[in-house]
Amino acid sequence: MIAVDYGTTPLPNLPGHVTICEVGPRDGLQNESTVVPVEIKAEFVARLVDAGHRVVETTSFVHPKWVPQLADAEELLSQVERVSGVRYPVLVPNEHGLERALARDVRDIAIFASATETFAQRNLNRSIEQSLEMFAPVIARARAAGIGVRGYLSMCFGDPWEGEVSRQQVVRIATQLLDAGCTELSLGDTIGVATPGQVDALLRDLFEVGVSADQIAVHFHDTYGQALTNTFVALQRGITTIDASAGGLGGCPYAGSATGNLATEDLVWHLHGLGIDTGIDLQKLVETSAWLVGYMGRTCLARTVAALT
Amino acid sequence: MIAVDYGTTPLPNLPGHVTICEVGPRDGLQNESTVVPVEIKAEFVARLVDAGHRVVETTSFVHPKWVPQLADAEELLSQVERVSGVRYPVLVPNEHGLERALARDVRDIAIFASATETFAQRNLNRSIEQSLEMFAPVIARARAAGIGVRGYLSMCFGDPWEGEVSRQQVVRIATQLLDAGCTELSLGDTIGVATPGQVDALLRDLFEVGVSADQIAVHFHDTYGQALTNTFVALQRGITTIDASAGGLGGCPYAGSATGNLATEDLVWHLHGLGIDTGIDLQKLVETSAWLVGYMGRTCLARTVAALT
Repeated sequence: MIAVDYGTTPLPNLPGHVTICEVGPRDGLQNESTVVPVEIKAEFVARLVDAGHRVVETTSFVHPKWVPQLADAEELLSQVERVSGVRYPVLVPNEHGLERALARDVRDIAIFASATETFAQRNLNRSIEQSLEMFAPVIARARAAGIGVRGYLSMCFGDPWEGEVSRQQVVRIATQLLDAGCTELSLGDTIGVATPGQVDALLRDLFEVGVSADQIAVHFHDTYGQALTNTFVALQRGITTIDASAGGLGGCPYAGSATGNLATEDLVWHLHGLGIDTGIDLQKLVETSAWLVGYMGRTCLARTVAALT
Repeated sequence: MIAVDYGTTPLPNLPGHVTICEVGPRDGLQNESTVVPVEIKAEFVARLVDAGHRVVETTSFVHPKWVPQLADAEELLSQVERVSGVRYPVLVPNEHGLERALARDVRDIAIFASATETFAQRNLNRSIEQSLEMFAPVIARARAAGIGVRGYLSMCFGDPWEGEVSRQQVVRIATQLLDAGCTELSLGDTIGVATPGQVDALLRDLFEVGVSADQIAVHFHDTYGQALTNTFVALQRGITTIDASAGGLGGCPYAGSATGNLATEDLVWHLHGLGIDTGIDLQKLVETSAWLVGYMGRTCLARTVAALT
């Protein structure tokens, strides 16, 4: 329980409001070994919204062969009662996925590209160029239907097979995705290896070619404990959309670690301490994560959840 | 194992070298419920030095009634083979503790003060002023004997009973400790609640009254996942001495959480990614923490240790 008030101390040149893109139900649960029943997922999404979230990435239409944890996507979407003013993006791998999404009246989708050839081959079974060709009609059709399209770009700061990733290559693919019609681009540190110099340099390079801060979200994994610090650097560069996962749900399929995404609670503690508005009730969020992780029978990796429960 | 090279990307205006003050054997082990045998502690210290540490806070002369985990201080000091160029500070609560330290040829001590009245009463059983009076002769005698004196200042950013802590009060006590002869001052976020605005503001206030960056160390606990980010802010303000605990050993006696100090491995990953020299061999350090935590039979809270083992 939050018992004591530690006040707020703002820093100059940081945004006044941040939008958190809550990815727990999708990026979190798809990387957990426990499969959560659909009614628990629906309650999870509802509680996240009740805690104040306005963007909750809900599920994925990737084939269940690849992501069995989210095989109930259609059923989940029918069970989630959509609240006005809240976005519930769904991951969509191709045109078939888009059709399934349209049939469920999804208003926001996300596609996922790779910044490295090795990960494009392993995750999408095609080259970077081929994957961009696959996404182009998905993005165009979605936009024509008035649907927002988030583009995930994975492995922006390091790749477990290739090591260091060329910033020039990341900038090239990022601009291709934006040119293709993505309404937002989420820069992913999929394996959590990034440090602040990389984040700062990539954002500067993107700004230099005309990308603006409000087109960019950042998506850090906490595999090496760097997620919040990298997020802070992005805030210092004017980024106002930050991906995080309730309770730090997730895990990293490309490292031996159970550590997942940046934990939303640690992020909210950080932002509220800086006087940055998120619209989120931290106590409700902590209770939601503690409830879900308790259901899954494991320890919560979010420090703030451990401290407040 | 570190299999892939992710390169280094420096940021302007950060220091080129950082001295890590390794507090695992003292601040870490004193807050663990497992009592570690003296020969394991001696091996732990030796392995930390072998991994490249040049400052290892080794033990404490606080009465065993209060810190039973470190009741073997004298025996440990006789077992630790001191390496030239390495400092092995020992916590000393009063003149009696100083005499025990002098008898064991200790060359660096640390005293511990509180930034709040409540914690001074609870931890030292006296007021802030009374505790400073108690430390004054300890500091003076140590300095006269050519011994370095680190002053810990606890609860600089928040107190579990008082909440927000007045920066003016912290600055006042900090300058008193330096005026009394402390050679270094470690600003402690004992309960891990701080966020970057507080760190930045306190450092600015200290600089304003003439304290210099090389007199200051920062000591963050990771109770709310903020430790590394706060450290980064301190680096941005020119601080070059950072306290951390191998494997994130510790725990917080004033929160329900098992989370301890900033984990040294996560700090080293951060600094090396930024191209900042520490002199530490990360792989050796990870193996040391994994070995100790394995001996203690618990999970390692350091993300980097989990990722690399």
